[in-house]
Amino acid sequence: MTAYIRTSRPADSLRDIRITPNFLPRADGSALIECGNTKVICTASIDENVPPFLRGKAQGWVTAEYGMLPASTASRMRREAAAGKQSGRTQEIQRLIGRSLRAVVDMGKLGERQILIDCDVIQADGGTRTASITGAFVALQLAVGKLLSDGRVAENPIREAVAAVSAGIVGGVPLLDLDYPEDSGCDSDVNIVMTASGKLIEIQGTAEGESFSVDELTKLIALAQKGIAELVQHQAQALKR
Amino acid sequence: MTAYIRTSRPADSLRDIRITPNFLPRADGSALIECGNTKVICTASIDENVPPFLRGKAQGWVTAEYGMLPASTASRMRREAAAGKQSGRTQEIQRLIGRSLRAVVDMGKLGERQILIDCDVIQADGGTRTASITGAFVALQLAVGKLLSDGRVAENPIREAVAAVSAGIVGGVPLLDLDYPEDSGCDSDVNIVMTASGKLIEIQGTAEGESFSVDELTKLIALAQKGIAELVQHQAQALKR
Amino acid sequence: MTAYIRTSRPADSLRDIRITPNFLPRADGSALIECGNTKVICTASIDENVPPFLRGKAQGWVTAEYGMLPASTASRMRREAAAGKQSGRTQEIQRLIGRSLRAVVDMGKLGERQILIDCDVIQADGGTRTASITGAFVALQLAVGKLLSDGRVAENPIREAVAAVSAGIVGGVPLLDLDYPEDSGCDSDVNIVMTASGKLIEIQGTAEGESFSVDELTKLIALAQKGIAELVQHQAQALKR
Amino acid sequence: MTAYIRTSRPADSLRDIRITPNFLPRADGSALIECGNTKVICTASIDENVPPFLRGKAQGWVTAEYGMLPASTASRMRREAAAGKQSGRTQEIQRLIGRSLRAVVDMGKLGERQILIDCDVIQADGGTRTASITGAFVALQLAVGKLLSDGRVAENPIREAVAAVSAGIVGGVPLLDLDYPEDSGCDSDVNIVMTASGKLIEIQGTAEGESFSVDELTKLIALAQKGIAELVQHQAQALKR
Amino acid sequence: MTAYIRTSRPADSLRDIRITPNFLPRADGSALIECGNTKVICTASIDENVPPFLRGKAQGWVTAEYGMLPASTASRMRREAAAGKQSGRTQEIQRLIGRSLRAVVDMGKLGERQILIDCDVIQADGGTRTASITGAFVALQLAVGKLLSDGRVAENPIREAVAAVSAGIVGGVPLLDLDYPEDSGCDSDVNIVMTASGKLIEIQGTAEGESFSVDELTKLIALAQKGIAELVQHQAQALKR
Amino acid sequence: MTAYIRTSRPADSLRDIRITPNFLPRADGSALIECGNTKVICTASIDENVPPFLRGKAQGWVTAEYGMLPASTASRMRREAAAGKQSGRTQEIQRLIGRSLRAVVDMGKLGERQILIDCDVIQADGGTRTASITGAFVALQLAVGKLLSDGRVAENPIREAVAAVSAGIVGGVPLLDLDYPEDSGCDSDVNIVMTASGKLIEIQGTAEGESFSVDELTKLIALAQKGIAELVQHQAQALKR
Repeated sequence: MTAYIRTSRPADSLRDIRITPNFLPRADGSALIECGNTKVICTASIDENVPPFLRGKAQGWVTAEYGMLPASTASRMRREAAAGKQSGRTQEIQRLIGRSLRAVVDMGKLGERQILIDCDVIQADGGTRTASITGAFVALQLAVGKLLSDGRVAENPIREAVAAVSAGIVGGVPLLDLDYPEDSGCDSDVNIVMTASGKLIEIQGTAEGESFSVDELTKLIALAQKGIAELVQHQAQALKR
Repeated sequence: MTAYIRTSRPADSLRDIRITPNFLPRADGSALIECGNTKVICTASIDENVPPFLRGKAQGWVTAEYGMLPASTASRMRREAAAGKQSGRTQEIQRLIGRSLRAVVDMGKLGERQILIDCDVIQADGGTRTASITGAFVALQLAVGKLLSDGRVAENPIREAVAAVSAGIVGGVPLLDLDYPEDSGCDSDVNIVMTASGKLIEIQGTAEGESFSVDELTKLIALAQKGIAELVQHQAQALKR
Repeated sequence: MTAYIRTSRPADSLRDIRITPNFLPRADGSALIECGNTKVICTASIDENVPPFLRGKAQGWVTAEYGMLPASTASRMRREAAAGKQSGRTQEIQRLIGRSLRAVVDMGKLGERQILIDCDVIQADGGTRTASITGAFVALQLAVGKLLSDGRVAENPIREAVAAVSAGIVGGVPLLDLDYPEDSGCDSDVNIVMTASGKLIEIQGTAEGESFSVDELTKLIALAQKGIAELVQHQAQALKR
Repeated sequence: MTAYIRTSRPADSLRDIRITPNFLPRADGSALIECGNTKVICTASIDENVPPFLRGKAQGWVTAEYGMLPASTASRMRREAAAGKQSGRTQEIQRLIGRSLRAVVDMGKLGERQILIDCDVIQADGGTRTASITGAFVALQLAVGKLLSDGRVAENPIREAVAAVSAGIVGGVPLLDLDYPEDSGCDSDVNIVMTASGKLIEIQGTAEGESFSVDELTKLIALAQKGIAELVQHQAQALKR
Repeated sequence: MTAYIRTSRPADSLRDIRITPNFLPRADGSALIECGNTKVICTASIDENVPPFLRGKAQGWVTAEYGMLPASTASRMRREAAAGKQSGRTQEIQRLIGRSLRAVVDMGKLGERQILIDCDVIQADGGTRTASITGAFVALQLAVGKLLSDGRVAENPIREAVAAVSAGIVGGVPLLDLDYPEDSGCDSDVNIVMTASGKLIEIQGTAEGESFSVDELTKLIALAQKGIAELVQHQAQALKR
Repeated sequence: MTAYIRTSRPADSLRDIRITPNFLPRADGSALIECGNTKVICTASIDENVPPFLRGKAQGWVTAEYGMLPASTASRMRREAAAGKQSGRTQEIQRLIGRSLRAVVDMGKLGERQILIDCDVIQADGGTRTASITGAFVALQLAVGKLLSDGRVAENPIREAVAAVSAGIVGGVPLLDLDYPEDSGCDSDVNIVMTASGKLIEIQGTAEGESFSVDELTKLIALAQKGIAELVQHQAQALKR
């Protein structure tokens, strides 16, 4: 096996990132995030109720749902609403998005309300779950901003930014931010969720073909750290607008 | 009851229309249609198989699915994939879209393949079903154009354009192209699907509060005819790009 | 194409109608309606609760469900309870029945209770949705009569009768009240729901093969008006018994 | 507890039985059976396919489905198609009906086809499962008669008639053919399915409140035997028409 | 047909029975029951709530659920949780288990709480429903013992023991406690649920191939009575430990 | 927060492990694995068919399903078969088990057949997913041994053993193999799947409360490596029996 050479950009580079805040102006918070050809609409909806297990506890909640437009993939996939259920993959991803955002929110400060995040992929080219997290944070921030400016929340419940990216070994070479062809052909890949201050929130690594060593894992984490630092800057710029 | 006065535009005017063809360039055909604040992503996916009831009959098929992003409405609605089923309203709308498009396609010329239309509402402000039909026709035309340029289809199976619009009586006044507040407050409304040459494909009229006379129906049909003539021009311009 | 000649009855005639009120004497209201070979059992059940969205509003509700016995059709259809869901067609029809009946009921006078209509087709030969509406009105009237004689309702909440019929163009000829073979072979057909006083409640027209002109629509509406006037008389006679 | 005295008819009498063969003339076989106020429409549909597990085995199959109209019970029950599933009770009953009929059919003589039985209760007053079996046999016989007269089946696959009835101990008294109030108040009851020649096909006995002795069971079986002998005569008379 | 000779044990013998009480020590009550190669884990969970229809009635409830590990059968069966529903057979069995246990419990003495029984078959070789009832009684007794020793229940609500066994006619010979090959090949079989004092709770007899006479039924009941007397002793011994 | 002191065993120790191979002797492969109070029945069933996407490709497949007995948890959980669907957590776990086992199997050597793994938790005290993987490997190995001894497979398709364990930071202290109370109270934990030769197959790390640093992750991986080396020895010993 000869080593894979990525020609489109350096091995440690992100794809072109574009974040459009307030993409759907009627939602409480929203952003369109584009990572290369991957495009995800992220929205945040404020709900002044909490799930039953939190009632009366003076605590808020953040939860997420994820979906893909049927034509978002190269070969049209079945609409989950028509199939009558969400796939295991969908549920796994939306649980991940929810956990990642909850990790940076102080639920006491949010107060007894929940924020519902929706991440809907309109075009998929690898990395939809990490793009969803990165974009969802922007939508969440905007919705929280609305709560703060409305006076419904007194103190900012968001502790710091959170973003996510993938890294993987393709043809023996560690690469940052895999697109779909790279992801399909990779030996192993890692999705990493991290805060602006560099703390790990979530790491999911899978050997697709070849198992990988602890050393290789360390290299992938370092790549991801670099990428997340850049993503956090993109988020901050988008939120300034 | 005093008569309703629409101040934003004349009673016989459409909302601002914008059709962006090839909005999702990886789909076989796609368009983003914006009718005022209503925004729908329409895609057309070519499938070289037909449903079982058409196998071996040298006939094609066109079918449609419809969905709404949860945050597309003023108050977030439940995700149908999470609810585990499509509502009656969703099924009714997607059946309507499918019938409307099939009415202008020569299935023999299309050949033994089907085109799957997806209409996903990303922002809803009334008239999502009619916007879906109007936008879906553009996506369908683009996908058929691909089949023609690929040589998979020899002769254009599309007989003529089709578009749709609503008209309704609000506060006693007949109005073209209702937005959501008008639709919610109307006495009765009609959704009309018509071809470029002015033939009716589908008419659905409902008295929400007040029943309506045959005369009133005639006025609403005339308004819709005017609107559809304009929509067909918007489609043609979008397809020229 | 040569014009279709209906030999069984004139083009503007209804099929033989028979309405048997109180067909299921234990229900609050019931009727068996037979339109030619189409037979539908319609029942009305009084429920002293309203759906959640109406609680405490001093308003009643009327809603409907529709079903077909598996052997009601020429070729046995699948039982929806066994399939685990109601088809899109079923949901579309039951929504139509509910809307049609609600249009003639004063919900304030009905008071905070609902009437649940069930229309179960035991034999199907075209026009099951329109027969359901016509028969359901009789069942509804009987149930309301019970509420009035019980003193639970003080004033009749039913404003006027409602009935429904189809009309269509078959082989170029406008015909009233299509049976199944006519419906299958028709160019376009319209289902019309109208009150005893001739006001439109609902119109649903579909071009099955050929699109149709506004002129043709006008002719079909006129045919339907004639048919509904006769149906309203059948209802009145049945209710006298 | 004082002994219950049934005043409407003797303890060992059936309710009034009426069987209307060919109630739905378009079905391959059909009957309306009325046992007192319990009324069930039974149909038999011939399907020239067998379930996968029987393909190529030169064997036929008989299977059954059961349903109740929502308004068939004193207090309207939920429509199973709307609920999205058949209850455990429904499934138990339809499995019982299928087994009971299969027990009298020679599947080799029936040939590689199946007969689908539908039993739909339109009014329920106790004993719907036993009425279904008794009526379904008539529908089955009529469908088999059609197969014989068509020449699709050479030799009658039905070995003998089958019918069913309940018996129970109410207030200490053994009674034949319980109606709903008796069934609700009974100590224990037995549903028995038997052939014309008096062989047992199925027995299901349940102590609702009081457990029962083997002696009591013997008495209930004797009552049922008497009832089934009469039901078989009713079936034969209905089939002569 | 020559008579079947059971060589492994006498015709009127049970298979080897082993009941391990407190098999899952964290459950409120539990037992592993092994009847030959049939093995079922039975647990009883105390829930201090009752179903809605019993609230405020000072009455308890006992209900049961049943399942099979996919690999419990010779050929792996589909997991019902993955299939998305419980089969008709599963529902029929769990309803039977619930009714059988409720028949020996004084619901007033149990108080407003319910006991949820779970019977999970880990290896299946015939008689899983009867083994479930026999084992579930032990789990129920242990859970009730816990309620008594906790002082939550003042007086023992269990009136007497209940157990279940099958008997059937195989090759013309009446046999007690059929294993899977015997059950598959039998002419007819009966499942009998009886109390320690010999009162019938439930009898379910089915002619699989040959119908059976009332005399044969009497013989099967006598066999079952003998078996149940032995099973009740096994239960008592297990509960002494 | 004061540091947590684990008193039951050293911080870098596994719980008591017991693996009972051939626990269900009728399955193709099976094992009961007990890790402290966590107990999982693992079975492997050979199916001589492959899923559709692999037909004709001379490749095998390994897939897994996971479930929990309702009473396996401290507070009884709802049966998924009764709920009508598998939770997101269940699907996530069974996908993980399947991926982990596939990573050590040469699908070409396995040939065109699949092995279906079932992991059913009968008692849960933390670490059910990792125990499932460790136990499932033993069941898989036994089923493969059967294929080899039957001559259906010529060469051992299993490349090396695979096992899994958790490690987490509780009260600031890194601990191996968390039980349920530790897992509930932990700051962050990692599930690691590794081969006998120390290669990573899967790593899933989640910050439950506190986010964690890359250094802490490194410590947890080291702990897991130690634990997995021991688990692989337990597997080997069990397989010798």
